[in-house]
Amino acid sequence: MKIAVLGTGMVGQALAGRLADLGHQVTVGTRDVAATLATTTPDGMGNPPYAAWAAGHPQVRLAAFADAAAGAELLVNATSGAVSIAALRAAGADNLAGKILIDLANPLDFGNGFPPTLFVKDTDSLGEQIQAAFPQLRVVKALNTLTAALMVEPKALAGGDHSVFVSGNDAEAKKTVTGILTSFGHTDVVDLGDITTARGTELLLPLWLRLMGALDTPLFNLKVVR
Amino acid sequence: MKIAVLGTGMVGQALAGRLADLGHQVTVGTRDVAATLATTTPDGMGNPPYAAWAAGHPQVRLAAFADAAAGAELLVNATSGAVSIAALRAAGADNLAGKILIDLANPLDFGNGFPPTLFVKDTDSLGEQIQAAFPQLRVVKALNTLTAALMVEPKALAGGDHSVFVSGNDAEAKKTVTGILTSFGHTDVVDLGDITTARGTELLLPLWLRLMGALDTPLFNLKVVR
Repeated sequence: MKIAVLGTGMVGQALAGRLADLGHQVTVGTRDVAATLATTTPDGMGNPPYAAWAAGHPQVRLAAFADAAAGAELLVNATSGAVSIAALRAAGADNLAGKILIDLANPLDFGNGFPPTLFVKDTDSLGEQIQAAFPQLRVVKALNTLTAALMVEPKALAGGDHSVFVSGNDAEAKKTVTGILTSFGHTDVVDLGDITTARGTELLLPLWLRLMGALDTPLFNLKVVR
Repeated sequence: MKIAVLGTGMVGQALAGRLADLGHQVTVGTRDVAATLATTTPDGMGNPPYAAWAAGHPQVRLAAFADAAAGAELLVNATSGAVSIAALRAAGADNLAGKILIDLANPLDFGNGFPPTLFVKDTDSLGEQIQAAFPQLRVVKALNTLTAALMVEPKALAGGDHSVFVSGNDAEAKKTVTGILTSFGHTDVVDLGDITTARGTELLLPLWLRLMGALDTPLFNLKVVR
């Protein structure tokens, strides 16, 4: 599949690399290609700059948001929640119409220190805001409940015996996304329902952040035991 | 131990019954003893009235909040979140001072239909509000992340292979509560940290409610896989 991964950070790199390894034709989308390639210092979390990652992934193309989106059959939103809608506007509604978007982003607000709070919650969600802003996009909220390394390599933890979720209004889109998650190694993909159920998974972040503190690692996930 | 369970609904009944079975001396606290005993119809969720439950549990005493709290060494808040602080005020700050409170309540607001939203979230929590209102009470948020039947009989699901959480400022109180949870059959009690971490577990409710819908049962729980 031709896939555009919007976002050049750790999450975007993890998704782009894994999708390329699985044989997809991947383009990473960014606001400013030259600025992305010119960055030579690690990000705030200590992750290497995009150019260093890209050197090891020559099959992944870097392009401006609109260019990346235009050529894609499916998109991944791996931008920060605070800039996701702006990034999608830059991609262009016409380039998104009818396509599936896997929305990984969380509406984290770092303005009050750590742990971050959420800038939309409970009565609305970022997933819904994206769906409302781009009615022709088929938004599937997924993978926003675990760390990037486990999003794409779930079998690295307990042989993959844990759960992920999909939320979205389009059953066929959720089926396609579930297929991609399964190709990553996920064995328990729980369909929560329509895009409003993204409120549930986005609100998991406050617990996730505190579990990361208590366990002193992001390498954990939840299993729905039933 | 002498334990007061505040709240006569399904959650209070489950806790009171299980604690009594384990040999504790249990008093259930209510706002109005006569009114509680006079109720003959099921509650809004179809649960039998308190009197019907009490007939099968003669060893459990019913008393007004203050009476129940005065004689207790440890308390359980099994009231609805919306009335929890009022119930504790009725119990009396003097009757609570120095004691441990296991706070099971969630700040659910049913004013907007189903699923309920939360009336405090993310930048504060019901657990913190209770701790702030009663500084001498040793509040431990626990068991607010699973259905009542599994709070007290976790081994009924997957042999007990799932997780619960404790949040609180007092290490000794968390140790005592962890002991009670272990006596119920819980094998994985995760200490999240101080009472502010109750924000995490209270915010799990929106996901829990949607999982209940997707799975069509409340008989599930989460396991922290790490």
